[in-house]
Amino acid sequence: MEIRSTFERLDKKFTGFGGLEPKGITRLLYSPEWREAVQALIGEFEDNGFEVKKDSIGNITGRIEGSEKPNETIMAGSHIDTVARGGHLDGQYGILAALTAAIYLKEKYGQPKRSIEVLSLAEEEGSRFPYTFWGSKNFFNLQDNKDVQDIVDADGVKFVDAMRESGFDFRSDDKVRDDIKAFLEIHIEQGQVLELEKKQIGVVTGIVGQKRYTINLKGQANHAGTTPMGYRKDTVVAFSEIVQNLVGKAKEIGDPLVLTFGHVTPVPNTVNVVPGEVEFSIDTRHIDQEELNKFGETVETTIKEVAEKYGMEVDINLWMDESPSLMDDEIIKTIEESAKEFAGDSYKVMPSGAGHDAQIFAEFVPTGMIFVPSIGGISHNIEEETDMDDLVRGIEVLAQTMYKLAY
Amino acid sequence: MEIRSTFERLDKKFTGFGGLEPKGITRLLYSPEWREAVQALIGEFEDNGFEVKKDSIGNITGRIEGSEKPNETIMAGSHIDTVARGGHLDGQYGILAALTAAIYLKEKYGQPKRSIEVLSLAEEEGSRFPYTFWGSKNFFNLQDNKDVQDIVDADGVKFVDAMRESGFDFRSDDKVRDDIKAFLEIHIEQGQVLELEKKQIGVVTGIVGQKRYTINLKGQANHAGTTPMGYRKDTVVAFSEIVQNLVGKAKEIGDPLVLTFGHVTPVPNTVNVVPGEVEFSIDTRHIDQEELNKFGETVETTIKEVAEKYGMEVDINLWMDESPSLMDDEIIKTIEESAKEFAGDSYKVMPSGAGHDAQIFAEFVPTGMIFVPSIGGISHNIEEETDMDDLVRGIEVLAQTMYKLAY
Repeated sequence: MEIRSTFERLDKKFTGFGGLEPKGITRLLYSPEWREAVQALIGEFEDNGFEVKKDSIGNITGRIEGSEKPNETIMAGSHIDTVARGGHLDGQYGILAALTAAIYLKEKYGQPKRSIEVLSLAEEEGSRFPYTFWGSKNFFNLQDNKDVQDIVDADGVKFVDAMRESGFDFRSDDKVRDDIKAFLEIHIEQGQVLELEKKQIGVVTGIVGQKRYTINLKGQANHAGTTPMGYRKDTVVAFSEIVQNLVGKAKEIGDPLVLTFGHVTPVPNTVNVVPGEVEFSIDTRHIDQEELNKFGETVETTIKEVAEKYGMEVDINLWMDESPSLMDDEIIKTIEESAKEFAGDSYKVMPSGAGHDAQIFAEFVPTGMIFVPSIGGISHNIEEETDMDDLVRGIEVLAQTMYKLAY
Repeated sequence: MEIRSTFERLDKKFTGFGGLEPKGITRLLYSPEWREAVQALIGEFEDNGFEVKKDSIGNITGRIEGSEKPNETIMAGSHIDTVARGGHLDGQYGILAALTAAIYLKEKYGQPKRSIEVLSLAEEEGSRFPYTFWGSKNFFNLQDNKDVQDIVDADGVKFVDAMRESGFDFRSDDKVRDDIKAFLEIHIEQGQVLELEKKQIGVVTGIVGQKRYTINLKGQANHAGTTPMGYRKDTVVAFSEIVQNLVGKAKEIGDPLVLTFGHVTPVPNTVNVVPGEVEFSIDTRHIDQEELNKFGETVETTIKEVAEKYGMEVDINLWMDESPSLMDDEIIKTIEESAKEFAGDSYKVMPSGAGHDAQIFAEFVPTGMIFVPSIGGISHNIEEETDMDDLVRGIEVLAQTMYKLAY
């Protein structure tokens, strides 16, 4: 078999479940399109002689039994759900690349020494119901069923009803698998680093930790005509000083630290009133916990200093504080060797700025991630795309890594 | 008669038309409260022996004929309408102060040499219908009736119907009065300058010109996690540089230049997306036309420079460009002399940062304005207030100015 044509066939087939045209692929958890995709994947596993297992909530595995160490499993996969109006690569590529690699390895090298499994996780995006990582959390029995008991989708359908209608149900046993010796996830980068640096492969060191804040500055609303500059407590001016100051500091610290002020709303948000209040968000991420914490302190200190300088009240609410999730050093090394063999120096060791199922796995089993470039950095959109050459290169590197670990 | 008690009586009476409690006075053009106030003012004019005239749209004058130069009129007044939920001083004080001053002068000094008129203008605020200065524009035949033909209030009532139901109609004649030798308007400052500088009286040099812009910056929307700082075109960062830069330049130039970024809306305005677009407003004002124009150029140049530095597209829309309106030098001098006589050095020569009927009058007749302090700078709000001592001092200065001009 040939990697490219096999992947092309699979990609075309699975993109049909949720349709790409005219507005992007929509394959939400427990929807008819999702059920079709899961069913088709089971068919592919069976056609290729893989042993199929389903868990109670909808995670699916296709297995090739190992000859020497059948109880040590090398696993690869990603999530089968999409965002609403997404592209054909986010999640789907990770499953189909793993399937293509497994078919390829089995055909080329026969039965592996360790068992190989391709994994399809039920859900990662949180696009239908307000709950993310439902698939991987269930995989490790991390879910709390109470969290989904009352949630509904945009049409008011209960999570529980959608799940049962699809023929699935809550996880019932407490046992977690202890045979997994490695988990590999290949994913589009969803950023522009590889493209701009002209690299085919990203060897992921980990998933960044992040802190998200909502900040409220309170100054004084005033008439924009009758209030001289010296008598103002203009919160948009103070906000702009905070932005300039913190962006400067973030750039000094350098990559991979990122800092974003994505949300800004002055009050009353009117042309002729000096804004007496402003609410804004901060999103900052780093792969190193200590660096992230240090920068979090800088964020808070700087905001307080600027607020004090302008005589304003400030409220800083840190509402998300996630730790970085590091990939396994040995697996990173193995992926890097495979990348060298198949892509020469066209690879980059880099962190992931976005969240992935791999971060859940990394808490429990040695985990590695591979990135391929995203054209224009676009994802969660019909325009999400990657050159076929890069997609194939990614599968080659994944297959080589699986080979090194399983054969 | 005594100025304080006369004004207190009038203020209490007229505040009743539109009620102050519980949420502020609402006396919108051609509303029942407005009609009651106009009717009551006519009653006061008659009770005090003033000759009453109404024009067709609802401007009212009460006249004391001059003995020597009856065809030269010294006029004082303001607008009788309020914003929704406003205070009891904005507009109303200007009419009742003029009425109190006229009664006082007539009683103390008898018939003036020139005629004195107290003026109530129908509308200034634009609070019921989207049209401002309806009263003063009609006074000088500046209105274009087509502009109000189709406008409606929040309840869908047509301007024209409201006007006719109140017993008024469009102005029919083209003739404009040529007997007015001076127009005086006393008003609350609606700012905090007098209060903070502990002055009782503002001698107004003119009403500032203003430019208002809407600016659109277009950079690039990106994932807040996967896009390193160096690869971003973050419009909120560019915006904050524009704010810092221009506020710095405005402060260097100094009073009375003001600059406000009151409206800011990033797109998509979400915590985890680098904002690829931002729309914001600029409001800048100065009493000197040349300085205002020069700063307008600085605004545009600075924005373009910052946009270029960040590789962004920019659209700058100057949608309001009003010239300063200067008060008459001789009248300014007369008001200043009166202020010295009644307030010692507790006065300040200053521009008005807000618009007033006086700016329409200044185009046609020698015009002067007097300010009294606004507690906390608050106006257009139930908390709009001025110390009674300051209100009385303002009437004394107005009366003295009218005396100098009419006796």
